[in-house]
Amino acid sequence: MTNGSKTDIYSRRESQARSYCRAFPVTFTKAQNATMTDAEGRNYTDFLAGCSSLNYGHNDPDMKAALLEYISRDGVTHGLDMHTDAKAEFLDAFERLILTPRGMDYRFMFTGPTGTNAVEAAMKLARKTTGRETIIAFTNGFHGMTMGALAATGNAGKRAGAGMALSGVVRMPYEGAMEGVDSLSMIRAMLENPSSGIDAPAAFLIEPVQGEGGLNAASTEFLKGLQTLAREHGALIIMDDIQAGIGRTGPFFSFEGMGIQPDLIPLAKSLSGMGLPFAGLLIRPDLDVWKPAEHNGTFRGNNHAFVTARVALEKFWSNDAFQRQTEAKSAYLTERLRAIAACVPGARLKGRGMMQGIDVGNGDMAAAICATCFEHGLIIETSGAHDEVVKVLAPLTIAQEQFAAGLDILEAAVQAQASQRIAAE
Amino acid sequence: MTNGSKTDIYSRRESQARSYCRAFPVTFTKAQNATMTDAEGRNYTDFLAGCSSLNYGHNDPDMKAALLEYISRDGVTHGLDMHTDAKAEFLDAFERLILTPRGMDYRFMFTGPTGTNAVEAAMKLARKTTGRETIIAFTNGFHGMTMGALAATGNAGKRAGAGMALSGVVRMPYEGAMEGVDSLSMIRAMLENPSSGIDAPAAFLIEPVQGEGGLNAASTEFLKGLQTLAREHGALIIMDDIQAGIGRTGPFFSFEGMGIQPDLIPLAKSLSGMGLPFAGLLIRPDLDVWKPAEHNGTFRGNNHAFVTARVALEKFWSNDAFQRQTEAKSAYLTERLRAIAACVPGARLKGRGMMQGIDVGNGDMAAAICATCFEHGLIIETSGAHDEVVKVLAPLTIAQEQFAAGLDILEAAVQAQASQRIAAE
Amino acid sequence: MTNGSKTDIYSRRESQARSYCRAFPVTFTKAQNATMTDAEGRNYTDFLAGCSSLNYGHNDPDMKAALLEYISRDGVTHGLDMHTDAKAEFLDAFERLILTPRGMDYRFMFTGPTGTNAVEAAMKLARKTTGRETIIAFTNGFHGMTMGALAATGNAGKRAGAGMALSGVVRMPYEGAMEGVDSLSMIRAMLENPSSGIDAPAAFLIEPVQGEGGLNAASTEFLKGLQTLAREHGALIIMDDIQAGIGRTGPFFSFEGMGIQPDLIPLAKSLSGMGLPFAGLLIRPDLDVWKPAEHNGTFRGNNHAFVTARVALEKFWSNDAFQRQTEAKSAYLTERLRAIAACVPGARLKGRGMMQGIDVGNGDMAAAICATCFEHGLIIETSGAHDEVVKVLAPLTIAQEQFAAGLDILEAAVQAQASQRIAAE
Amino acid sequence: MTNGSKTDIYSRRESQARSYCRAFPVTFTKAQNATMTDAEGRNYTDFLAGCSSLNYGHNDPDMKAALLEYISRDGVTHGLDMHTDAKAEFLDAFERLILTPRGMDYRFMFTGPTGTNAVEAAMKLARKTTGRETIIAFTNGFHGMTMGALAATGNAGKRAGAGMALSGVVRMPYEGAMEGVDSLSMIRAMLENPSSGIDAPAAFLIEPVQGEGGLNAASTEFLKGLQTLAREHGALIIMDDIQAGIGRTGPFFSFEGMGIQPDLIPLAKSLSGMGLPFAGLLIRPDLDVWKPAEHNGTFRGNNHAFVTARVALEKFWSNDAFQRQTEAKSAYLTERLRAIAACVPGARLKGRGMMQGIDVGNGDMAAAICATCFEHGLIIETSGAHDEVVKVLAPLTIAQEQFAAGLDILEAAVQAQASQRIAAE
Repeated sequence: MTNGSKTDIYSRRESQARSYCRAFPVTFTKAQNATMTDAEGRNYTDFLAGCSSLNYGHNDPDMKAALLEYISRDGVTHGLDMHTDAKAEFLDAFERLILTPRGMDYRFMFTGPTGTNAVEAAMKLARKTTGRETIIAFTNGFHGMTMGALAATGNAGKRAGAGMALSGVVRMPYEGAMEGVDSLSMIRAMLENPSSGIDAPAAFLIEPVQGEGGLNAASTEFLKGLQTLAREHGALIIMDDIQAGIGRTGPFFSFEGMGIQPDLIPLAKSLSGMGLPFAGLLIRPDLDVWKPAEHNGTFRGNNHAFVTARVALEKFWSNDAFQRQTEAKSAYLTERLRAIAACVPGARLKGRGMMQGIDVGNGDMAAAICATCFEHGLIIETSGAHDEVVKVLAPLTIAQEQFAAGLDILEAAVQAQASQRIAAE
Repeated sequence: MTNGSKTDIYSRRESQARSYCRAFPVTFTKAQNATMTDAEGRNYTDFLAGCSSLNYGHNDPDMKAALLEYISRDGVTHGLDMHTDAKAEFLDAFERLILTPRGMDYRFMFTGPTGTNAVEAAMKLARKTTGRETIIAFTNGFHGMTMGALAATGNAGKRAGAGMALSGVVRMPYEGAMEGVDSLSMIRAMLENPSSGIDAPAAFLIEPVQGEGGLNAASTEFLKGLQTLAREHGALIIMDDIQAGIGRTGPFFSFEGMGIQPDLIPLAKSLSGMGLPFAGLLIRPDLDVWKPAEHNGTFRGNNHAFVTARVALEKFWSNDAFQRQTEAKSAYLTERLRAIAACVPGARLKGRGMMQGIDVGNGDMAAAICATCFEHGLIIETSGAHDEVVKVLAPLTIAQEQFAAGLDILEAAVQAQASQRIAAE
Repeated sequence: MTNGSKTDIYSRRESQARSYCRAFPVTFTKAQNATMTDAEGRNYTDFLAGCSSLNYGHNDPDMKAALLEYISRDGVTHGLDMHTDAKAEFLDAFERLILTPRGMDYRFMFTGPTGTNAVEAAMKLARKTTGRETIIAFTNGFHGMTMGALAATGNAGKRAGAGMALSGVVRMPYEGAMEGVDSLSMIRAMLENPSSGIDAPAAFLIEPVQGEGGLNAASTEFLKGLQTLAREHGALIIMDDIQAGIGRTGPFFSFEGMGIQPDLIPLAKSLSGMGLPFAGLLIRPDLDVWKPAEHNGTFRGNNHAFVTARVALEKFWSNDAFQRQTEAKSAYLTERLRAIAACVPGARLKGRGMMQGIDVGNGDMAAAICATCFEHGLIIETSGAHDEVVKVLAPLTIAQEQFAAGLDILEAAVQAQASQRIAAE
Repeated sequence: MTNGSKTDIYSRRESQARSYCRAFPVTFTKAQNATMTDAEGRNYTDFLAGCSSLNYGHNDPDMKAALLEYISRDGVTHGLDMHTDAKAEFLDAFERLILTPRGMDYRFMFTGPTGTNAVEAAMKLARKTTGRETIIAFTNGFHGMTMGALAATGNAGKRAGAGMALSGVVRMPYEGAMEGVDSLSMIRAMLENPSSGIDAPAAFLIEPVQGEGGLNAASTEFLKGLQTLAREHGALIIMDDIQAGIGRTGPFFSFEGMGIQPDLIPLAKSLSGMGLPFAGLLIRPDLDVWKPAEHNGTFRGNNHAFVTARVALEKFWSNDAFQRQTEAKSAYLTERLRAIAACVPGARLKGRGMMQGIDVGNGDMAAAICATCFEHGLIIETSGAHDEVVKVLAPLTIAQEQFAAGLDILEAAVQAQASQRIAAE
């Protein structure tokens, strides 16, 4: 079958909802760490990394080996939420390597293996335990496509998909979203005014760094202030660490070291380590009031993901070496992006850790930069309300040379676009 | 680590929401076709089959081989919704082996890999394309746990999980649900009365056989009548074939041969063939009005599932042998269950195809039967509003002797319970 | 100013929402008991009676005298909900003449002076006191135009006015509404099935006789059965007696003598006696958990209405003479309508007491009959989902001859229409 | 009957929802202009004026005379929405004296005679005509108690009355409500950010001066900015002039002279002139897309109110004398309140025109001031989220001496309270 005929099958048989494949219209057949290879044998450096689902790169050899072994020996692939050795070993590793060292006490809820399902479970539990309906979400937040999570998602295009009005969510500006508005003060004033019309919230639902929303990073001060406010008003904090967590900003959780104790933490994306569908919700134990099967689902126990996730924890989180490496790479990334941004008048650095990017001011230019990069073998995408941010989401495991080379491609593309635009004025 | 300590990890670290593991409190370590094996080496016959997610049994050797090969050669594991060879080959097989032979013309939407996500996508699209909000769902229907699909799910316990009122869905009795009520006539009368207070519906959302709801099987007459009514009133039919489809009742789709052309068909569970998370929505092409990424999600392209799903199609659906086998097994199942039901005064057969069971009249007895079965090495579960139906959901690929032996265990358990109950009276 | 120019002002300046004035396009300048007089001096017999707001006829001389006296002595017209002598005297008369003799114990809540406001107050209180959201309303029910009450109103045209989906209400068939459906049994089955998808209701909201819905009269058996069901399921009964109450069916409340003790009773229309805006909600004392001003409103104390309402109670409800008269007139009405209905093949009598009518099978014929009546000096209107019922809502105080003469006009009109239709076939 | 026994009837028979009567626990029997008289013959000066429903004072002699004449001659009291001479004359006067001189072109919709009904009609029409659901309302807004209007009302106590979550409304800070937040800029930023999560609004619903919310007066700049923003985003302006309109701030509409052309204007309270229940909605003609009876109601045609409202227009709005008088009184009020406020450290003047008051900083002090005033024969109330504003809502027609004397009582009460508080510190 040629590449061409495979493209035909997509236009003939795949829904118009498809998206990334439009920007990268080749057929990928192989992937290793930061490199994807197409059917023609061409290699691409992956600065998208499954939107942060591949923090450890594609097909990590140790995860792959463990998975091959597990499949070979007919380990349970699907067992609903029944106990398996793979599940026990994952939970054990998660307790031993993640929770205990951080002094965190949470229950793990295996929701359906999508981020939106983990967010929905969190929203439901927050409403159930508080007896309140309103969840306060933030401008530019992205939490998922099912009706509950979609109500909390800001993007107008996604919201339009609902075909009906979405309820139960009140929107507040994310830190820094509205010039001249101190968001925290405003939220406080709204909650303290009994005639504000804002009902007492069940929870705040917030991303420590907004990935899709444009790499907006909340400050420690903001998140701590929000936590204080939440506690004063009997509301929970749902910290959606789906994109920023699992090492993306350095530590395992993106909010580590901030003095934050979220009540509920949805996780997904890089949780399985190898990009397999896997999601979960960390629950403060006293909030774990679910009745058996009250929130259930067929694929709650993706045993293949348990296997690879366990290996990921053991390989990368047994000591702090990986976090240190990420911090070093992040510093390098900041330095490079700062230089690159300097080519574009008005451009701004966004994000933190290994989820940084450049706001080039408009979506057309950002799209042109990404297209140019792809021509030169770099997979990279935009984010932000106007798709105005070129974001770097490389695997954390990328080799330094490949990282540098990828950034060189980006730099050249930005310079080319910047020159063109200056010339056009 | 002993089995005991692994159990500890669950009570310490897994959410109370866990369910099946409570009924089957052992650690499973291996599974092949209809047999699961626990850590002690004990074998169990699986009449639950991942709630119909394992229609082809556990770890089918051909799917397993293909998957091992794919992983070994570093095939793309995670690529968002980018084109891969695995995806193209799945789509090609689906067109060639499923759609074309049945004269069906649909687009395939890869939603997040959970049934609830496919249902949500269908509900959203029905509302978007009709400009109407109301979706008519049915008593005892089960469609998922996220807020949109949960609104259409009947079970009070699951609904309570929402922590808030659910909207956008109107409920009608499923065929035969209310004694003395001709459901179709009533729905027609409601829709034809401009003062009924039932708004014009965007869609009917219905399962051809209600799995969780108690193995209620709608007749061809009912489903065709509903289709006629839907067309008269400008509403769509969303045929949720997640549990009954993929061969469970004999043909690939449970509604084949009924003269039904659903507008939207959510699929999941056995779609991947091997129990991997995978879901999709079949869309009548003119309804595929999604904008790119309007309904997106990280795990829309589970390439491992594409590989196994493609093998499943090629292995089981290249000719009608598999369907014939299933029909033969179904006939055998009916015969055996009829005899078993005769032991329990008032018991009734429910369901069709390889999703049949016995309504024993109350949940306590049904639970006791299942517990006794498990003691004798048979994994089997209940369904129905009062968990009053003992349901047989064996893999379609189960060997005849194992099937017979499993039914023998069931028969003995039913007889034992029936005797005890009669003795107790 | 001529009649003509006054018509101009309406098309120029009154909203298209206006309605009755379109069917009766004259300017009325005077009204006494059952007679309205237009600007040309022509008299009309009023069989509409303000849709049952003028049960005691237009401008009753005793109410009028009391009101003139009150206004002349500068009695308080508007005092928000402050105590006035007029209010105390009304409450005293209501207790003495209505509650005490009937052994009824209720608190009177003065809501805004519209029926919809009384219904909204009832719905809010039912939700507040039960902690549940769902209110079960019935096909063809009419409860008002504000968003809460509109959600419970069946008429599609009215519902369309909302411009958005209405929530919080589940619809069930009114007694006899769906051929072959025993509504009470079906509701019971729905509530007793924990997977029906019908959430436990806060209340049933029902009209003992559906005025706008087509003069459908519920039986004692149905209403008692509903009350039993409500109590079993912890739901309240909101008995909307706005149109059928205040003597329209004979007794003061339309459900008297049925063994019904509603929890909440919205009243309006004829409550003031003279057609002044006035509404209220009777509340079972233990349910009166409102905080001061929790449901408030500017016109809760229409003192003019207190004055006339008090006179109405004293004049008509000090003994049972008025009820007897109404019963006699009702019997006469039944007899006459039976004869009239006999002219139209398939026509059926509807309603009870002094709210009876003829279902002539379609709205066109009903409209033609009403138009012919108006030409002959009779004001009469239709109701029903298809406006297919010609309804007689004469003042209860109408003189026997005028009543007979009005019915003669109706009879002639029906005969004329029936002949025309037969001729046309 | 003694005053005492009348009080008994209230506690025995009136709902706990009653409110003003608790602050003023006497029985009023008579009222003229700015004076109310109780059953003991004691006179009170009325600085509450039916919460701005009695802008022309109690029982204006000319309105009273016209109403007595109308009732005496058996003018139609209740005629649903049929044409009457009273209605035509009101509409004619409204066109001639209000619309034409101001160059305003609106249709008048007679809604049910309560402010909340007029607001609901406006919200429905805004949603219908724009096809959007969201209505943006403001902190501290008060719009009514029925479910649609209640969703737009800020007060937590009132909202709690709903017993369920309220939807369809998004809340923004009123001008000046949140320190350091430029409300207009923030709203603009929210609407211009496609990922803000704020759906395109059907309308802004705003009071030019928030009466219940604490006498917050929006500036011309703010209202014009809002109008600009609304037009840019295809949203309507619903200007709720129920409390501030009908001369309360000087001109007939409170927004006159600001360059504002609202799309929809709900009116009520002082519309009838004499405090009779009356409400209406002014509709920009091209938005008047109602179908006949699409929003109907029994008391849409309160003919008594038409009579008095027409007299009010003719007497007070035939020239600008009344407006001039109000402006003069407003200036006097400002001067007096400024002096009074000076007694209380931190006190602030609020409001404009003849709806001004003093924010004394807390509700306890404000309540104590009002209680002291009542002891000295002055009826006055508080408003604001914490009931912290003592508000003066005297009849516009109050005689200068009585006005001054009332303000003397207020001044003394404030001074007394201020001294007490200072002494207590």
